Amino acid sequence: MNLKKFISLALLGLLIFNTQAQEGYELWLDYKEIQDPTVEKSYTSFLNNTEVIGNSSTIQSIKKELQLARAGFDFEDSEPNNESKLIIGVQNKLPSTLKNQINTKNLGEEGYKITTINNGNTIVISGNSEIALLYGTYGFLREMQQWNDISALNIEDKPKIQKRVLNHWDNLDRTVERGYAGFSIWDWHLLPELIKPEYKDYARANAAIGINGTVLTNVNSNALILTPHYIEKVKALAEVFRPYGIQVYLTARFSAPIELGDLDTADPLDENVKKWWKNIADEIYAEIPDFGGFLVKADSEGQPGPFQYDRTHVDGANMLAEAVASHNGIIMWRAFVYSEEDPDDRAKQAYDQFIPYDGKFADNVMVQVKNGAIDFQPREPFHPMFGAMPNTPLMMEFQITQEYLGFSSHLVFLPKLFEEVLDEDTYSNGENSTVAKIIDGTNSNKKLTGIAGVANIGTEKNWTGHPFGQADWYGFGRLAWDPYIDSKDIAQEWLKINFSNEEDFVKPMTDLLIESRETVVNYMTPLGLHHIMATSHHYGPGPWVDDLGRPEWNPVYYHKADKNGIGFDRTASGSNALAQYAKPIAEKYSNPKTTPEKYLLWFHHLPWDYEMKNGKSLWNNIALHYQKGVEQVEQMQKTWATMEQYVNEEEFEKTSMLLAIQLEEAKWWRDACLSYFQQFSEMELPTGVPEPEHDLEYYKSIERPYAPGINPSW
Amino acid sequence: MNLKKFISLALLGLLIFNTQAQEGYELWLDYKEIQDPTVEKSYTSFLNNTEVIGNSSTIQSIKKELQLARAGFDFEDSEPNNESKLIIGVQNKLPSTLKNQINTKNLGEEGYKITTINNGNTIVISGNSEIALLYGTYGFLREMQQWNDISALNIEDKPKIQKRVLNHWDNLDRTVERGYAGFSIWDWHLLPELIKPEYKDYARANAAIGINGTVLTNVNSNALILTPHYIEKVKALAEVFRPYGIQVYLTARFSAPIELGDLDTADPLDENVKKWWKNIADEIYAEIPDFGGFLVKADSEGQPGPFQYDRTHVDGANMLAEAVASHNGIIMWRAFVYSEEDPDDRAKQAYDQFIPYDGKFADNVMVQVKNGAIDFQPREPFHPMFGAMPNTPLMMEFQITQEYLGFSSHLVFLPKLFEEVLDEDTYSNGENSTVAKIIDGTNSNKKLTGIAGVANIGTEKNWTGHPFGQADWYGFGRLAWDPYIDSKDIAQEWLKINFSNEEDFVKPMTDLLIESRETVVNYMTPLGLHHIMATSHHYGPGPWVDDLGRPEWNPVYYHKADKNGIGFDRTASGSNALAQYAKPIAEKYSNPKTTPEKYLLWFHHLPWDYEMKNGKSLWNNIALHYQKGVEQVEQMQKTWATMEQYVNEEEFEKTSMLLAIQLEEAKWWRDACLSYFQQFSEMELPTGVPEPEHDLEYYKSIERPYAPGINPSW
Repeated sequence: MNLKKFISLALLGLLIFNTQAQEGYELWLDYKEIQDPTVEKSYTSFLNNTEVIGNSSTIQSIKKELQLARAGFDFEDSEPNNESKLIIGVQNKLPSTLKNQINTKNLGEEGYKITTINNGNTIVISGNSEIALLYGTYGFLREMQQWNDISALNIEDKPKIQKRVLNHWDNLDRTVERGYAGFSIWDWHLLPELIKPEYKDYARANAAIGINGTVLTNVNSNALILTPHYIEKVKALAEVFRPYGIQVYLTARFSAPIELGDLDTADPLDENVKKWWKNIADEIYAEIPDFGGFLVKADSEGQPGPFQYDRTHVDGANMLAEAVASHNGIIMWRAFVYSEEDPDDRAKQAYDQFIPYDGKFADNVMVQVKNGAIDFQPREPFHPMFGAMPNTPLMMEFQITQEYLGFSSHLVFLPKLFEEVLDEDTYSNGENSTVAKIIDGTNSNKKLTGIAGVANIGTEKNWTGHPFGQADWYGFGRLAWDPYIDSKDIAQEWLKINFSNEEDFVKPMTDLLIESRETVVNYMTPLGLHHIMATSHHYGPGPWVDDLGRPEWNPVYYHKADKNGIGFDRTASGSNALAQYAKPIAEKYSNPKTTPEKYLLWFHHLPWDYEMKNGKSLWNNIALHYQKGVEQVEQMQKTWATMEQYVNEEEFEKTSMLLAIQLEEAKWWRDACLSYFQQFSEMELPTGVPEPEHDLEYYKSIERPYAPGINPSW
Repeated sequence: MNLKKFISLALLGLLIFNTQAQEGYELWLDYKEIQDPTVEKSYTSFLNNTEVIGNSSTIQSIKKELQLARAGFDFEDSEPNNESKLIIGVQNKLPSTLKNQINTKNLGEEGYKITTINNGNTIVISGNSEIALLYGTYGFLREMQQWNDISALNIEDKPKIQKRVLNHWDNLDRTVERGYAGFSIWDWHLLPELIKPEYKDYARANAAIGINGTVLTNVNSNALILTPHYIEKVKALAEVFRPYGIQVYLTARFSAPIELGDLDTADPLDENVKKWWKNIADEIYAEIPDFGGFLVKADSEGQPGPFQYDRTHVDGANMLAEAVASHNGIIMWRAFVYSEEDPDDRAKQAYDQFIPYDGKFADNVMVQVKNGAIDFQPREPFHPMFGAMPNTPLMMEFQITQEYLGFSSHLVFLPKLFEEVLDEDTYSNGENSTVAKIIDGTNSNKKLTGIAGVANIGTEKNWTGHPFGQADWYGFGRLAWDPYIDSKDIAQEWLKINFSNEEDFVKPMTDLLIESRETVVNYMTPLGLHHIMATSHHYGPGPWVDDLGRPEWNPVYYHKADKNGIGFDRTASGSNALAQYAKPIAEKYSNPKTTPEKYLLWFHHLPWDYEMKNGKSLWNNIALHYQKGVEQVEQMQKTWATMEQYVNEEEFEKTSMLLAIQLEEAKWWRDACLSYFQQFSEMELPTGVPEPEHDLEYYKSIERPYAPGINPSW
């Protein structure tokens, strides 16, 4: 047996053993052995002959990452070729001979450049800050993880959005609202003394995809997080994250001045209230000089806010903005608001509340808007606020955790959903005013830009529960860095890094990922249906629910199915939510015939026999979409079954088991929804759609006690 | 570079990488490379040349374990020596030449024999069942993990206690009552479809130490677990555990017949109630033929029970026993009861309630008794029920999770505590009637024997949070198998398996582990003090608490400190709890002078200036014990600091951080308790005990919001 083979076998044996039930912990930083000798040869010396200029904690992190990569790629024992070299340094600290060859003027603070010089023998990673070098290093390693040719590497890359943050809806008791991957990774009880390795690995994983901020606490926030007892803990996390360029943010409970026992009002125009928040901010910044600021959910779903004092969102946001302004902090003020009394279409309310205040918010306030006007559905038209507030920085809020998309048991590649929203044209500034351009500020030259993703991260050994949930976190980060990347490219990149470079794996699996989003739409909410999930936990179908306290909590409010038809009329004859969009959209969507069919029932109430583009009735189309969703999951199963050779045993089996759940539940969705809607349509199921196994009463009776992600106090 | 060294280095590199932040997951099944070539040589062939007779799922598990060991020990590529061989088989299935040489008559069902024959060239592991072979295999591998000489191995070992079970106080929402290692490992939402690798690894780890049962749910139980929706999930777990000889048990909520909506009474003598439980049992056994039975907490701390219907513990337990009897199920009826109204010393109540019923319980009922009469304190005298019910099988209930011992942040080697209790002489059947002999049935020839440990297991990546928490789980299992093993031997065994065989590591660390239990007693509750922890979460000191609804919930009830002295008078002049013990104890302990000082204030209220054996006052002794506890933790830190070379980086650092917490909190305990008691003693602190840093009000004001382990509904 030759040495190489011997070692490979030994390594393989060890790998199989050491990764027992721990697959996935390394996320996209699982540097795997480069099994192609030619590729390996072209990489080895660059990692075995490196010069990293500097000695700060960020530089140390870069060095450590290179070591880990070297070990994982199995380069550690190869002799370096003295000709090849990797140099990493901030541009103005590079040796003078190099300095002149590397121009970093247009890179900003975070952008990086990977330049190949010296006849391909030297690769230089540079930028204008050490964080830029870190991003560059991860970018470079990502090329290697994909076995890309690096012989003439020349990459220039910088983020298009400034604030790229994760939102953790994590409570102080470690429950996670809408969390399906276990519980909160923040072990508050043992902080600040116990620094878990997970904290650093979280920072590494995020930095590797360009995320530069994290909101640690739930938007339904707890004022205690602002007390010194907790700030000390937050500080400890901030110190772990700092070398990785990750700023820490907290949620601010608007009524905190009262709840913490200091004042009897939280009126944002009250001088004592202003002073109180200023003091809190000063206290936090004294401990955490690079603290990012506050995320605020106010006057929404029972949360306190300025309305109680007859003040506005602007009053509330700007008061907090003032408290953090001198420290370069920002306020992310959420636009997810709907009134407890307002009988108007819930889809319209945020727009109506916020648009009048365009341009009134302080410079360091961003309004954080969910991608759609309802709530993180499998598909929603983009939120009409995008494009409608040209003088206000709007931050995108995506949900990575799958509240309405099958929790952590359904495989849904969300970057495809994010991309669809980002690519939509708002027409706010003429044609090609895409949501991405609103977000990255290019549409109206905004100075402050941001994007947030509600995290799908928890205590599960692989962070996300579903092995493919990692792809959603990864993809969010990549799109936050550059909202114009093709989701297909992200899928390929992730599949290669995570599993295998073999084309027989990458190609069909890319197709599977890309199709997975339409699949969930088909079996849950086709043709513009929305919010027909079961109550409270939102798991499984509940189109029949009609008994909740507020009308807009009930699925029947959203689908409005009756003998005459189905769908929410949001045209002029209905709620006229459509009028909130720019003219080209409002006009096009006012007619069902010119409305994209994927949004049909979002905007129109139509008779069951309404004729669709394919010549079949609406009822038939609904039924066939549900059926197609089921068949697509069956196809996912079939494809996955052929991938065993490319995937480690643990993730192969886990994904197989989860796909079985997904198929079972796709059928549950189909059968429950069709049984329910059929009462009204009174039409036969079209050929190819099987009769439901059970009657409607059975589906109505299904309960999911203790479904995860629900706040125990609800 | 030679091949071997090359490989070692490569492996090391890989190890460092692959175990990033995952250290400890493998527990005591982390088969590490045997780095001593002589030892390695003597082992290799036995693992590379094995014959395992049979093909059942248990046999498969044995084969798989041998593979894992081979890979971990790094034997996979060594050429087998054809002379050496390991044969594993049930005795009556061994080849006839062997059968005659291996006598397994006295081994019972679970015992095993490891026999070396054929001039040391053949090792045979045998027994009377496949589970015995599994235990034997683990026993054999344990020898190798310790690098023991196996050249003439002859081991005969069988469990001394029949039912060796873990109790999980896990709720269906995955919170864990008194859990400090994250949340429940049972992911009910995704069961039965998703079988996590953790389930199997849990079974492996338990089987390796001889545990053969697990109660999945909290003693404060939820009736829903008895519904088909959950039984299907329990069944899935039982199927994973079965090949490892682990039976599944559930907790039965006494009021389930009412709560699940079927009956309007839970009266144990009501025919419909009996029928209801019989049906439930039949339903469970139809799915899980080897279901173990029920654990019941009734009429205790607000839980429902037979008292409501004027029935007795016997009525309740025997009714349930009848329901499971035909399936060979058992009932574990907890004796942790105290009345909401009874003003009598809480320490006396369980004894008073149960003793009258000795001999009245059905044959398949065990009464499960906590080790002490109060509640899992750092030290308690053994529970007086042990020895007092000669005609009732008493099951020991230990707490592995550290509710009153510093949660998962204090290093306390609990087998030392367990051993102290097991070794106590009850004198119930003359001298040498130790608690161990009550438990294992030898004291009165009981047919049913059992021992339970309240698990310290959770979603933490290393299962227990504190790396040394694993030793407590391990030690519980070893003592459950054989309650006469010296805790020092367990400590050594675990240290060798888990970290290193080097004597410079094993010796001082064994001393550290053994001393750690007295350490926590010193800094928390020296000299018989007890239950002076803070309210509800029980974290940190709270000797001043006096405002809780029931007297026996208040620390002041237990220490009774006033100007006249301190301690609970349980002699004839007080509650006379002492009378519940056998005469030799009752007499000896009635006089403070002959009472072991470790129990002094448990049984006596004594003046502050009472003269102790060392000639110093009680006050001085209390103060010096607290101080000694602090100094012992300082010594633990010093010892640990020298162990870096023997321990992986992650566990070294984690333990260092946790020891820093432990030291800080030992000081907190010392300063808070001495500040508080000094008000009454009005005496100076003795030399060597520093003045508290803060005043008493400061210590009283410390809060630990969201301390883990508390049921959110409390």
